[in-house]
Amino acid sequence: MTEPTADLLPVGLEDRLPVAARALTRARRAALDALDLHGYERVIPPLVEFEKSLATRMSGVATRRMFRFVDPASLRTLALRSDMTVQIGRIAATSLKGAARPLRLCYAGEVATITADQLDPARQRLQLGAELIGSDSAAAAGEVVALAIEALTAAGARGVSVDFTLPDLVDTLAASALPLDADRIEAVRRELDAKDAGALKQAGGEAYLPLLYAAGPFDEALGKLAAIGGETAGGALESRIEGLRQIAARVGDRARLTLDPTERHGFEYQSWFGFTLYAEGVRGTLGRGGTYRIGGSDEAATGFTLYIDPLVDALDAAPSGDLLYLPPGHDPQVAARLRAIGWRSVAALHDGEDPAALGCTHRLEGDTPTAL
Amino acid sequence: MTEPTADLLPVGLEDRLPVAARALTRARRAALDALDLHGYERVIPPLVEFEKSLATRMSGVATRRMFRFVDPASLRTLALRSDMTVQIGRIAATSLKGAARPLRLCYAGEVATITADQLDPARQRLQLGAELIGSDSAAAAGEVVALAIEALTAAGARGVSVDFTLPDLVDTLAASALPLDADRIEAVRRELDAKDAGALKQAGGEAYLPLLYAAGPFDEALGKLAAIGGETAGGALESRIEGLRQIAARVGDRARLTLDPTERHGFEYQSWFGFTLYAEGVRGTLGRGGTYRIGGSDEAATGFTLYIDPLVDALDAAPSGDLLYLPPGHDPQVAARLRAIGWRSVAALHDGEDPAALGCTHRLEGDTPTAL
Repeated sequence: MTEPTADLLPVGLEDRLPVAARALTRARRAALDALDLHGYERVIPPLVEFEKSLATRMSGVATRRMFRFVDPASLRTLALRSDMTVQIGRIAATSLKGAARPLRLCYAGEVATITADQLDPARQRLQLGAELIGSDSAAAAGEVVALAIEALTAAGARGVSVDFTLPDLVDTLAASALPLDADRIEAVRRELDAKDAGALKQAGGEAYLPLLYAAGPFDEALGKLAAIGGETAGGALESRIEGLRQIAARVGDRARLTLDPTERHGFEYQSWFGFTLYAEGVRGTLGRGGTYRIGGSDEAATGFTLYIDPLVDALDAAPSGDLLYLPPGHDPQVAARLRAIGWRSVAALHDGEDPAALGCTHRLEGDTPTAL
Repeated sequence: MTEPTADLLPVGLEDRLPVAARALTRARRAALDALDLHGYERVIPPLVEFEKSLATRMSGVATRRMFRFVDPASLRTLALRSDMTVQIGRIAATSLKGAARPLRLCYAGEVATITADQLDPARQRLQLGAELIGSDSAAAAGEVVALAIEALTAAGARGVSVDFTLPDLVDTLAASALPLDADRIEAVRRELDAKDAGALKQAGGEAYLPLLYAAGPFDEALGKLAAIGGETAGGALESRIEGLRQIAARVGDRARLTLDPTERHGFEYQSWFGFTLYAEGVRGTLGRGGTYRIGGSDEAATGFTLYIDPLVDALDAAPSGDLLYLPPGHDPQVAARLRAIGWRSVAALHDGEDPAALGCTHRLEGDTPTAL
C-alpha cells in the first residue's frame, strides 16, 4: 500500500476501527433494544429503491442529495437511501396497510448523501428511530418523546435536553386569530426564523412580535405563548398548548425542556408538533421528531430519528475488557466453558507468540485464567 | 397508495417485515457475538468507496456488477460495495498496518450488486465474516473453519457440513509431479471442473484422472488423494494433505466433512486451501472461506464470509413472545420494572383500545401482568 491515507476514502466516508466500532455496535444495540421493549417492531428496508418511490415521499431538495444510478433490470433510476423514514412510511402504507393501528415500527441502518451538509462533513450516517403510525395525538407525541429520550440514554447519552416547536404555528394563527394575507405568510415565517423584530414589522407581522419572546425554558416560554393564546390570539392556540403541557408532564423529569415555538429548520414535514434532541457534551442535534402525515397514504403518524454517530464519538472509549490467551495444547472444552461465562479468548496459532502483544490480559494455565 | 405491490421495489431488493427482521437481527447478533468471543474485533467500513480502490482488490468480473456513480466532491467514480472482504483487507493494509499480527477482524453489513447472479435473484445481502490476517497456516485455517461453524451454529444452523478444496492443486501438480505444458493447464482445470474424464484425456490431462475420483466424504477422499500423492505425484501433495488432516482433526466432530480437491468455483482468490459451508434444510451455500493474499499488501490471510439471509429464511419463525398491554393510568414505575426483567410492553394511547388486536398477550392489572 503506497497510496496516501487521505486518498484512501472519499471525503465524508470513514472506517470505524475496533474501538469506535465496538462503541457504535453497543450503542446501536442498546437503543434498538429500548425500542423493542416498548413494543416497536423492527423492519429492515433495502439500501436501494426506485428514486421516484423515495422522492415522492420526500421534499425535492433532499432527493437531489441522493446517490442515483440506472437499474439495468428495469431501466429506471434507483437511489441509495438518504432517509429511512420514507421507507418506513412506504411499508406502513403497503405491506403493513392491513396491520392493526396504532402500528409501532422501528429501524436502524446506514443512510448516505452524495453531498455533505454545511454543518456536518459526513456523507454516511447511522439512522435509528421509531414511528408510531395511526396517531398524531398528544398522547402519541408524549410516548414518542419519552421513547426517544430512553433510546438516547440507552445509547449512552447523559443530560438529554429536548427543544419543542410548533411547526404550523404561523399558518394556524394566520388563518384564525392573527390574520395575514396569504402572500405575507412566507415573509413572516422567514423573519420569525431570523428572529429579526424590525424586519418582522416591515413584513407586516407586527402582531407576531410576541412569539419572538416566547422561547426558552419550557414553563416560562409556554406561559408567554399561552398569554398570546389567551390575550391576543383568542384561544386559537389552546389545543396546541394543552398538547405541549401533556407531553412535558410525561417527560419533564427525564430531560431539560425548552420551547422555541417558531423554529422551523428541519421540520418541513411535521404538522402541529416537533422536537429536537441534544445531549451534554455533544455538539449539534442528535435527532428530531414530531407529528406528520405519511406521504402517499396521508395517514397520521408520530416518530423520531436519531443519528448516534456524534454521540458515540463523544463517549469515553469503553475499556476493551479482559482477553484470555489460550496457549498451544490448551483444553478446548475449558476454553469453551470460559467463553460461555463471558471470557473473550484468543487461541495460539503457534509456539512463541507474545500474548501481551496480541492484546491479551490473561493466559489460561490449566483451567484457570491467570493475569499476565 | 395505488401502486401495485410488485412495482414498489426493484427486482432483487426486499423489505424484511417484523417477523423476518426479528429473526435476522437475532441471527446476526449471535454470529457476531461468537466472533467477538474468539477475539475477532469488529471494524465498520463505509457503504461507498472509490471504485478503483475496491476494484484493485477484486477481480474484473466482480467490479462490473457494482452500482457506480460519479462523486461530485472528487469527480472520481464511486461504487456501492459488493463485497466487504476487500474493505477489511484495505483496513489491515493501511490503518491497521502497524497492529500486531496475527490480526483478527470481523465485520457485518449489507452488500449490493447491480445484477443478480443466476442462482440467486437477491441484489442485496447481509455479509458477515472474519479474517485472520498475518497467517495462512493449517493452524490458522483450522481456527477459521471452526469459527465459521460456530458462527453459523450460533445463527441457528443445524447439521453444518463443510466441503474442503485445494484451489491451487493443479498448478502445484503441474509444476512438480504431474508436469503439464503451461498452455494446457487451463484446459485441464476446466475439464476437472466439468468432471469430464473423456475431455480431460483429450486435453492431455490423463495423469490427472485419479483426481476426479478423490472427491466425497473426507476420510475416503483424502485417502485417495494421498494415494495420488504417494504413488503418482511423488510427495508433492504432502504438505497440503497434512494441512487438511490438521484442519479436519480440529473440526471433524462439529460438522460433516467432504473433500472436492479440484473444486474452483468461488475460489478465484484462494491459495492452497478453500472451504464451502452448507447446513441442513438450506438450499445452496451459506458461505465460503480459505487462505489468500491481501490485494495490495500481499500479506497472508485466512478468512470466511457468511451470507445468512437464506439460513434465516429457512429457520422456523421464532415465537414473537409475550407482549404486555399497559392500560390508561398504569403506574409507569411498575412498567419500567417489568421491562427491566424482560417484558416487552405497549402503552395505551387512549381508552377503548383492544389489547389483543395490538398483539398483546397480557394486560397489566395493578402491578401484575395478567394473561388476556
